[in-house]
Amino acid sequence: MTPIPNLNIVPFVSVDDMMRLVLAIGAERFLTDLAGYVEADYRRWEQFDKTSRVAAHSLDGVIELMPASDGALYAFKYVNGHPKNTRTGRQTVTAFGLLADVATGYPMLLSEMTILTALRTAATSAVAARYLAPKGADCMALIGNGAQSEFQALAFKAMLGITRLRLYDIDPAATAKCARNLAGLGFAITPCHSIEDAVQGAGIITTATADKQNATILTDNMVGAGIHINAIGGDCPGKTELHRDILLRSDIFVEYTPQTRIEGEIQQLPADHPTTELWRVITGAAPGRTGAGQITLFDSVGFAIEDFSALRYVRDRLQEYRLYQELDLLADPDDPRDLFGMIQRCAASTAG
Amino acid sequence: MTPIPNLNIVPFVSVDDMMRLVLAIGAERFLTDLAGYVEADYRRWEQFDKTSRVAAHSLDGVIELMPASDGALYAFKYVNGHPKNTRTGRQTVTAFGLLADVATGYPMLLSEMTILTALRTAATSAVAARYLAPKGADCMALIGNGAQSEFQALAFKAMLGITRLRLYDIDPAATAKCARNLAGLGFAITPCHSIEDAVQGAGIITTATADKQNATILTDNMVGAGIHINAIGGDCPGKTELHRDILLRSDIFVEYTPQTRIEGEIQQLPADHPTTELWRVITGAAPGRTGAGQITLFDSVGFAIEDFSALRYVRDRLQEYRLYQELDLLADPDDPRDLFGMIQRCAASTAG
Repeated sequence: MTPIPNLNIVPFVSVDDMMRLVLAIGAERFLTDLAGYVEADYRRWEQFDKTSRVAAHSLDGVIELMPASDGALYAFKYVNGHPKNTRTGRQTVTAFGLLADVATGYPMLLSEMTILTALRTAATSAVAARYLAPKGADCMALIGNGAQSEFQALAFKAMLGITRLRLYDIDPAATAKCARNLAGLGFAITPCHSIEDAVQGAGIITTATADKQNATILTDNMVGAGIHINAIGGDCPGKTELHRDILLRSDIFVEYTPQTRIEGEIQQLPADHPTTELWRVITGAAPGRTGAGQITLFDSVGFAIEDFSALRYVRDRLQEYRLYQELDLLADPDDPRDLFGMIQRCAASTAG
Repeated sequence: MTPIPNLNIVPFVSVDDMMRLVLAIGAERFLTDLAGYVEADYRRWEQFDKTSRVAAHSLDGVIELMPASDGALYAFKYVNGHPKNTRTGRQTVTAFGLLADVATGYPMLLSEMTILTALRTAATSAVAARYLAPKGADCMALIGNGAQSEFQALAFKAMLGITRLRLYDIDPAATAKCARNLAGLGFAITPCHSIEDAVQGAGIITTATADKQNATILTDNMVGAGIHINAIGGDCPGKTELHRDILLRSDIFVEYTPQTRIEGEIQQLPADHPTTELWRVITGAAPGRTGAGQITLFDSVGFAIEDFSALRYVRDRLQEYRLYQELDLLADPDDPRDLFGMIQRCAASTAG
């Protein structure tokens, strides 16, 4: 048996490392390559051990653990959702995650996932839209111009050819921020003063608002035939963005039905309302868009496999980019049965 | 509102930090103080949001997430169990954990937990034994002399006055290692050549073997009246250490019945066999030891509240001992809605 060096060390990708990785690879290429990982993992959906997230709810928010495994790799993400956090300068959502080797249980990568979740969410939206959006759509309405908006814009530019953006947010400062950040990146950007205005001429409508309540961002009359709706803001019980009538006119695509019934837009519908899981469209087991007049809805809540894919993507970039630090996370005594002796030897080495 | 500095930073206690913390505090005091935290948290058992661990099983082992929350703090532990790992020089069990603030969902501490789990397991055993072991017992048989054994010995010395140890392991090298590590720490140590020999004169029998199979470390004839058995090696389905007949003669105490039915010694018994949860003994709701002839059994599998207590204990020692590093784990843009802009500014600062 070959001795394995540094069994105690786990690579850690910090927030700073992740920013530099995005900059080194380029945001659009990062999103496109990551989308390839997400699509590849959805394609082998049936290999995964799937569980709904494990949530700890409190008055102020929720803390969730999202595990997933394909039998060779295991991943989980820690993620919180606390809408009031912005009042104290904190993020509504922060996250970190871990990738581990199923054969040994040893962690292989610890990574920040606040930025990475924003990237994987946008990449997944674009994967779904490639199967569901009307062909040739080059204009997207972006309703909700917060932390997720620019990532969505870039993923749809890189993967679907969206070059025209129509922005709307209840807070004009958010729209201005989004437009400023995307300036010079190849978009024709139109800030809009109403949702009705924003959806004009858009083949794709992305809703990414953050209200933790049953809101009605889109009403039925705003949604014309042939539109693809990418609804990513409704993602927990009691938080939805679309009027129920839109759902009834749409063909609804989801990540994992049992989770989306609880957390997605379809929490407004009876539990037997038909849905199609995205992996079935990707594998060809079910049709995506079938006609020019069809309204398609991707009712996205975020699923653990996407985090698995994202951590796998980052792990595969470690050697090339070397943007990580080495974390002394795992005890590694010379004799695995001698944990206590390791502590004693630490004392001896310190004293000596 | 007062700005909070360094919202991105989470203190990280590495393996090296944890060893130095144990050495700085002293193992016996660490165990005793930690036991105080465990006992205090068990005393307010009903405040906790309790769930069984979330396990991902594979052919070679298991990866588990163990969450717990008291409504103000949230903790989870990642822990693996892979018996074959020792063949490649790895630990059977490694672990790390996180403590977070329920009000914001923000992590407060990331810590190695391989060493910390060994400490909290021993501390919990000693808490239970204070309520269950025969009064005045000063001799303990320690069956299984692996990674957990020295921690058990020291916890029972510090908290119950155990000064005589009778050691047995199927591998004499493990016994020699345990005896060597404990030399000079205040014990009279007797290495034994059989389990029958080891249990002679012992008021407490601790079993801490690692076989992943239904083993029979203790048979019925080895266990006399009045003994306390501290059984910590049986901790997953199919892994037990005690003959069923011992269980039938014992009053059985557990951490959390639903989990222990699946993972503990009592998986050998019908699902309605009576057990007493430890917290009920600690709060006085149920009796512990009631007579000199009674056989008491603490069927310990490890419960998430103990990890919660352990992380809370370490968190409370950060400021005094300063044995941690600062981890850039959380994205902290100036404007929480401007995650993408934060990345762009990182590029600008690098280029500048």
